[in-house]
Amino acid sequence: MSESRYKVVGTCPIRHDVTDKVTGRALYGADLQLPGTLFGKILRSPFAHANIKKIDASKALAMPGVLAVVTGEDLPEAGDRVAELGEGNIILRYLGRNCLAKEKALYKGHAIAAVAATSSHVAEEALKKIDVQFEPLPPVLDVREAMKPDAPLLHEKIITQTIGAPPTVKSNTARHIQHKLGDPDKGFAQAKVIVEREFKTATVHQGYIEPQNCTAFWNADGFLTVWTSTQGAFSARNQLSELLRLPVSRIKVVPMEIGGGFGGKIRVYLEPVAALLSKKTGRPVKVVMSRSEVFQGTGPTPASYIRVKMGADSSGRLTAAQAFLAYEAGAFPGSPVGPGCMCVFACYDIPNVQIDGYDVVVNKPATSAYRAPGATNAAFATETVIDEICERLNIDPLDFRIRNGARQGTRRGDGLVYPRIGFVECCQKAKEHPHYSAPLERESKQDGSADGPLAEMIHAKPKKYRGRGVASGYWLNAGLRSSASVSVNADGTVNLLEGSTDLAGTRTAVAMQLAEALGLKAEDVRPMVGDTEMIGYTDVTGGSRVTFATGLAAYEAAQQLKKQMCARAAKIWDVSPHDVQYQEDGALILCKSDPTKRFTFKELAAKLNATGGTILASASVAPTGVGPGFATHIVDIEVDPETGKIDILRYTAVQDVGKAIHPAYCEGQIQGGVAQGIGWALHEEYVYNEKGEMLNASFLDYRLPTSLDLPMIDAVLVEVANPGHPYGVRGVGEVPIVPPPAAIANALYRAIGVRMRELPMSPGRVVKEWLAKTTRE
Amino acid sequence: MSESRYKVVGTCPIRHDVTDKVTGRALYGADLQLPGTLFGKILRSPFAHANIKKIDASKALAMPGVLAVVTGEDLPEAGDRVAELGEGNIILRYLGRNCLAKEKALYKGHAIAAVAATSSHVAEEALKKIDVQFEPLPPVLDVREAMKPDAPLLHEKIITQTIGAPPTVKSNTARHIQHKLGDPDKGFAQAKVIVEREFKTATVHQGYIEPQNCTAFWNADGFLTVWTSTQGAFSARNQLSELLRLPVSRIKVVPMEIGGGFGGKIRVYLEPVAALLSKKTGRPVKVVMSRSEVFQGTGPTPASYIRVKMGADSSGRLTAAQAFLAYEAGAFPGSPVGPGCMCVFACYDIPNVQIDGYDVVVNKPATSAYRAPGATNAAFATETVIDEICERLNIDPLDFRIRNGARQGTRRGDGLVYPRIGFVECCQKAKEHPHYSAPLERESKQDGSADGPLAEMIHAKPKKYRGRGVASGYWLNAGLRSSASVSVNADGTVNLLEGSTDLAGTRTAVAMQLAEALGLKAEDVRPMVGDTEMIGYTDVTGGSRVTFATGLAAYEAAQQLKKQMCARAAKIWDVSPHDVQYQEDGALILCKSDPTKRFTFKELAAKLNATGGTILASASVAPTGVGPGFATHIVDIEVDPETGKIDILRYTAVQDVGKAIHPAYCEGQIQGGVAQGIGWALHEEYVYNEKGEMLNASFLDYRLPTSLDLPMIDAVLVEVANPGHPYGVRGVGEVPIVPPPAAIANALYRAIGVRMRELPMSPGRVVKEWLAKTTRE
Repeated sequence: MSESRYKVVGTCPIRHDVTDKVTGRALYGADLQLPGTLFGKILRSPFAHANIKKIDASKALAMPGVLAVVTGEDLPEAGDRVAELGEGNIILRYLGRNCLAKEKALYKGHAIAAVAATSSHVAEEALKKIDVQFEPLPPVLDVREAMKPDAPLLHEKIITQTIGAPPTVKSNTARHIQHKLGDPDKGFAQAKVIVEREFKTATVHQGYIEPQNCTAFWNADGFLTVWTSTQGAFSARNQLSELLRLPVSRIKVVPMEIGGGFGGKIRVYLEPVAALLSKKTGRPVKVVMSRSEVFQGTGPTPASYIRVKMGADSSGRLTAAQAFLAYEAGAFPGSPVGPGCMCVFACYDIPNVQIDGYDVVVNKPATSAYRAPGATNAAFATETVIDEICERLNIDPLDFRIRNGARQGTRRGDGLVYPRIGFVECCQKAKEHPHYSAPLERESKQDGSADGPLAEMIHAKPKKYRGRGVASGYWLNAGLRSSASVSVNADGTVNLLEGSTDLAGTRTAVAMQLAEALGLKAEDVRPMVGDTEMIGYTDVTGGSRVTFATGLAAYEAAQQLKKQMCARAAKIWDVSPHDVQYQEDGALILCKSDPTKRFTFKELAAKLNATGGTILASASVAPTGVGPGFATHIVDIEVDPETGKIDILRYTAVQDVGKAIHPAYCEGQIQGGVAQGIGWALHEEYVYNEKGEMLNASFLDYRLPTSLDLPMIDAVLVEVANPGHPYGVRGVGEVPIVPPPAAIANALYRAIGVRMRELPMSPGRVVKEWLAKTTRE
Repeated sequence: MSESRYKVVGTCPIRHDVTDKVTGRALYGADLQLPGTLFGKILRSPFAHANIKKIDASKALAMPGVLAVVTGEDLPEAGDRVAELGEGNIILRYLGRNCLAKEKALYKGHAIAAVAATSSHVAEEALKKIDVQFEPLPPVLDVREAMKPDAPLLHEKIITQTIGAPPTVKSNTARHIQHKLGDPDKGFAQAKVIVEREFKTATVHQGYIEPQNCTAFWNADGFLTVWTSTQGAFSARNQLSELLRLPVSRIKVVPMEIGGGFGGKIRVYLEPVAALLSKKTGRPVKVVMSRSEVFQGTGPTPASYIRVKMGADSSGRLTAAQAFLAYEAGAFPGSPVGPGCMCVFACYDIPNVQIDGYDVVVNKPATSAYRAPGATNAAFATETVIDEICERLNIDPLDFRIRNGARQGTRRGDGLVYPRIGFVECCQKAKEHPHYSAPLERESKQDGSADGPLAEMIHAKPKKYRGRGVASGYWLNAGLRSSASVSVNADGTVNLLEGSTDLAGTRTAVAMQLAEALGLKAEDVRPMVGDTEMIGYTDVTGGSRVTFATGLAAYEAAQQLKKQMCARAAKIWDVSPHDVQYQEDGALILCKSDPTKRFTFKELAAKLNATGGTILASASVAPTGVGPGFATHIVDIEVDPETGKIDILRYTAVQDVGKAIHPAYCEGQIQGGVAQGIGWALHEEYVYNEKGEMLNASFLDYRLPTSLDLPMIDAVLVEVANPGHPYGVRGVGEVPIVPPPAAIANALYRAIGVRMRELPMSPGRVVKEWLAKTTRE
């Protein structure tokens, strides 16, 4: 990289919270133990689909140590209003029903009732004493099954939404989205090559390490305090306010440290239940999920059925594209099919497009956001079809992407026109990367680390089924709303209060932007995440928005701070404020007309208390200049011919990050996203039996990728500055999960000639397809 | 009172923190229990004055469960720099030595060493195993003894400060203050009546219910967090920063709820010790004082010797006044003799004045601030002398005060010229009050509550020794520095973050000013006290400054908030911001040119998130328009001729509060101050033996006034607006403690003809003086 014009941005200071994190001092929700706390447990439905005829909790309530039981009847009826979660919306009635079922249980694991008791063991025993009369109903477990006219219906109120026509028939399809651009029929007519394929992806969990947890205390004065593991304290407050019919100012949400979220900790699950139990008992109530509850009772990302048809002319230009995306919403409407539709063709400049998306309820847990929600499913389809087109046209897949890639001014399928973006730059960078032209060998061989007998053993294998694939990915990125408050300490440092839960080192990434704007060092800023009473409204940490938007809030607060510092210096020097300027380089406050008058930031900070008090500033932003994110990945794989197991040999992820505030964190985000994408591609899935029971609800059986499954992931940062941010920041965290499944599928094709169109590409499925292909041949 | 132009100011909403306080949920320092906490105990000197030859802690350290011992050697040498406490200054070396002695123990109870252990019992046992070699020295226990040339010297470094001459001789007199106005000799020459008297007051404790406590955690990254009961988190942070040589930004002080302070919780005692123990052990260390430690190891208010001479001419005009004030600093320089000198004649317009003040060290605990520090001692002298002059001139004491009272433009003894003040108004109000003209009977008789046999019993007593006295009082009041941050919630309420520890309902008094400024209700504001990382620098809660200065900070933040609300409305309406105005009445945002365009605060608040994000504002102030406080009290007493015990029959306290933000809190402050003044007048004192051992270091033996000792105290609020505050606020909390001892002494004279010039006027002393007078007669 060329010499930076920044002093702090682009460097890698250690994170401000490192000590608490590595010593275990950081306080997570499960660490909280208030005096007099009761323990809550949730009774969950054993049926995937059943009417709830009656709940009798009298035996449970008679147990010593049991202080309260709540059911769906205790939650006010929430109505059809829509709650804005910050990442997607949800109808309140569904949000409430998902926290505590009423009338019907819609998935195995659906919360039916909850107990508060003096110990968790008593609470657990009490669950067994709650008598629930269920009337089991046939479950529907697959999106295409659920769309059939004769499918069992989950909800009485949902009627098919047909575009352009009044809704008529009751169905499981909650929403139909359609985007049209140009004339797809005409476009396909111009095509030399048309490829149309069907794809299926499985239900996948975010796999955060820390289970959902919360403690709620409903005080006698009607004020509710909730300590919880959440991606957004204000979003949790909003949801609680709507569900409990309590004004937001009567609720304080304290965001504890969070052990991962990836989109799964935006929606409330336990919070309203714990609040109701606390209201009934007058004591704090703590509820912590088990891993099995996390799998069965919280929102994974949807399984989906996708059909993509794309056409290109003889010059290798895309002429038309069409997509049909049916996403499983789970028990309640709200799958990320919306962003799926926005993302499906977003990497390409295609003149004629039609996209149809369907949000379909099935008897599985209500799905939730997961890193670039909806985009990975869609990219798996598009990027595989592109790969086939390239093969048919005999064009290098990166050249094809460079030729057809979206640029500034390109119109996305849903009509959005791009500002300056860096997709083509990513493809070019990928093409130039040594990986793309390297022979198909293990990384370890190349760098000599596996030389000797081990390397010989590896390379002594008779035949290698190896292949290299590429795929691209896109994510919208979000802006939303963020606040920041800053104040100057007498020792020349600055305190920074922000409302964004720190999932990925954003305390430091935001503090760095404040430091840069002031000309200070990153260590001169002391960042802190506030609760909902300490800081102004701030949306969820999600959508890859925090470094962008909260960073901008800190930047804006810095501008105000500088203005006030100049005004104070003017007062001290008895000159006009217009005669004073702030020089970021060196953090100097200078008198323009008299060069002998100057303060360092530190000097002036030391004088503030004696000259009118300290200086505070705050800013709230709702930025519109969001910079979309693009990535292109290269992967080398090897397939074990005995088992069908896919090994990742080498992985390179090229991504436009706009500007890397903290390059190591950007790389970490990219590596983490790729790792999750690989898990999704290769082994992760919810395995259901025909009754709708999840058969692998533990980390032993639901297989996340481990370090043994992954090579070193080479993250290559492309920096095409986002014009909508003073330092050019784009969101980074979500794009990297999008390309891996398609990239691996494309690599697999090159390794064994099989095109996998179903995720995960688990050994069994690979062997099956491979055998089928061999048989055909 | 006439109809108020305010909607919130002047009303009495319930305090925002009432529920937590009455249910016991509020968290005080002793409630805090961090995981892995160690317990600290302090070894205290058994001698009032001794050299420390050697400290051997090896046996203590060898005990199982003992993790660390610290002594004065562990504290960095602090030097001669002065630390600003917010209410008085202190030389750092002395502050450090007071926390942990070095070289010498200067009072019984002086901290010598401290232990951290796994339980408080182990820590206590370990104290006994610390071997300290003391070399006892003769103690000096009285201010006049200490001023003698041959007195034992406490410090090698202190040399007599003679005004106008270079310091020469080593002494116990750390400081000599002198104020001169006009020509006192000439003034006394013009006088018809001159009265000169000597007075003595005893050492008195603030008597807060909650003992000092703190928990400190010195993290492995070098950041120190201290949770403590303090009047000022930032002041505690400053002191810790200086004592531990740690930048302020490396220290976070979290102010817990506080169970009283009255000036006694400004200086640090335990905090640096706990911090050092935590640094050595790497674990949180909690230290809580016993009551006996509070008495013997923290700073009471000084005993004093005062001589006052005043003269008046035949027309009843004061012509001259002279005062000699010698205050016991305790073991280290820093008595409140400075404010004593400013206050001694502050109620009166006297053309010729000389005031000499002396800060004198003695072998008692280092004194500390206590409600109007220094003023009560001084007023006891002045107001008694005034009473004698009135008697000699046969002028009604209130008429005399009205004639000579300080007014706008009056020059105080030290030169300060008063802005608009309300002293004369207080005296006039007192004169008009029914109490002043009522017969000398018990209140209970008048309102009929003690009618019947009981009343007959009381009134059947053969002779009543009853008298009525009046006295006035003054306190400077403080401004200092305060910060406030505010943010708008979507439900139309406002969060308020302030840095002022809430000792007396200031959360509500500050929130009310914010509400008034915005046109909201008090309940629409949610106030919260922040730690040193959440809010900008804010000085101590003390000096009667919070309602004035933090209220002003909230007011200033409100002005910014309104401006931003108008700007947002302008954006929504697409009009110029100049076309929008904020109308406090009704909290309306109006378009000037189009009356159909209007928002209520609530309506606009609900729109903020969708139109650019919420609105935040913050302000830091260092107000100069402090309004001095004056009061005049009337008291009726009865003396028991058998025991000399004084009963308070009726008490009326008239005070200029500027503007009562929350009248009931003002009354509560006045009643509380009077109650403490009565205790000081009648029974409170540190009783020492000749070795300097306090003989009554418990609440059983040190007698605070109880409800049985006190009548209903009638607080009469006079409102002469302070022009330096938008609502006219003056400090209220401190003045009311000033007049009671003099008022009671003056009443006593009228009851039995005895002038008491020594505090407390305990039964034994009263009987002794009464007998002496009878014998003389």
